[in-house]
Amino acid sequence: MTNKRSSISNKDIVLQTASTLFLTKGFQVTSMDEIVALSKVSKTNIYYHYKSKEELLLAIVDQLISRYEERISRTLTQDMSIPAKMERLFRILMEDNEQIDYVGGCPFLTLYTQTSHSSSEARAKIKAFFDKQLQVVEKLLEEGMEKKELSRNLPVHETAALIVTSIEGALFLTKATNNPMLAQNLIQAFASMLK
Amino acid sequence: MTNKRSSISNKDIVLQTASTLFLTKGFQVTSMDEIVALSKVSKTNIYYHYKSKEELLLAIVDQLISRYEERISRTLTQDMSIPAKMERLFRILMEDNEQIDYVGGCPFLTLYTQTSHSSSEARAKIKAFFDKQLQVVEKLLEEGMEKKELSRNLPVHETAALIVTSIEGALFLTKATNNPMLAQNLIQAFASMLK
Repeated sequence: MTNKRSSISNKDIVLQTASTLFLTKGFQVTSMDEIVALSKVSKTNIYYHYKSKEELLLAIVDQLISRYEERISRTLTQDMSIPAKMERLFRILMEDNEQIDYVGGCPFLTLYTQTSHSSSEARAKIKAFFDKQLQVVEKLLEEGMEKKELSRNLPVHETAALIVTSIEGALFLTKATNNPMLAQNLIQAFASMLK
Repeated sequence: MTNKRSSISNKDIVLQTASTLFLTKGFQVTSMDEIVALSKVSKTNIYYHYKSKEELLLAIVDQLISRYEERISRTLTQDMSIPAKMERLFRILMEDNEQIDYVGGCPFLTLYTQTSHSSSEARAKIKAFFDKQLQVVEKLLEEGMEKKELSRNLPVHETAALIVTSIEGALFLTKATNNPMLAQNLIQAFASMLK
């Protein structure tokens, strides 16, 4: 019992250590030896849970995606107006990056650009996450217009593309230009576009 | 004379080879040995021109920036309406990525996320490039409104932030989601926003 509990906890520690290293230093420059040294979990124990850096990467991508999706679906099922839901969604997508100094501003962008062709499975998961994000925004726009809570004249695909791409671009550019006004100006632009 | 000419040409070959490797495979996973092997320029000759991978990176960033800035300033000085200039600008920023399969969709984003803390000089140049891009868009918006070629009601900072971030996000997401409609929808969204 104690053994199992400590083994689960070791697994979490390894995942957390690898996640921090991959996201703040980079996947390519992080070695399994570094994960061993920093997590203080034995190599045998680490390899028992994760056969390779690629397996760790996949577990991290899964964890990130489920964390975002949980927060997004909680927002979608709440009893709020569509504009309020959209604002909440924008904040979920934009604010998480304030806590960790991701190499590329956004955790998915950081992992994607660090893995190149080495992990097609992780890339497929990241693609699915963004495809879904686009669909969520399109659905909210349609619902909002149907309920007359949003301006009637918004072209759905174009507006959703504008919203999803600008949030992603803002995550990267806030980091690259060290300009926190970008995200604020964006939230304002959305507000005036959607009212 | 012949010596000098061949030396210039070798320098260009090395720069081109390194650029392709850094942008399509990644800066961190490319070694100087690989650049030697692929460029077929001798190691001594390469190190004569570039002391390190970081020096090559800086030269590549400089070359990329001057290539973009040349095209942008040529557009800005042309005798066209502001909406036409803006559309041309969007295409310059979005279309170059169709030719090369950059790891992260955009050459600057690719280099930035691949260098992490190793090259603060390259990062400062990339920051300056995007800061300037934002200023160019803001200036065009102001000019367009002054000349009444654009809708009077656009908030300058918010609209410029929306445009610059969404172009950057579209470059990454077109690559990550393999969805060419994103960029097309974005161009349409800009057109209806600016008319």
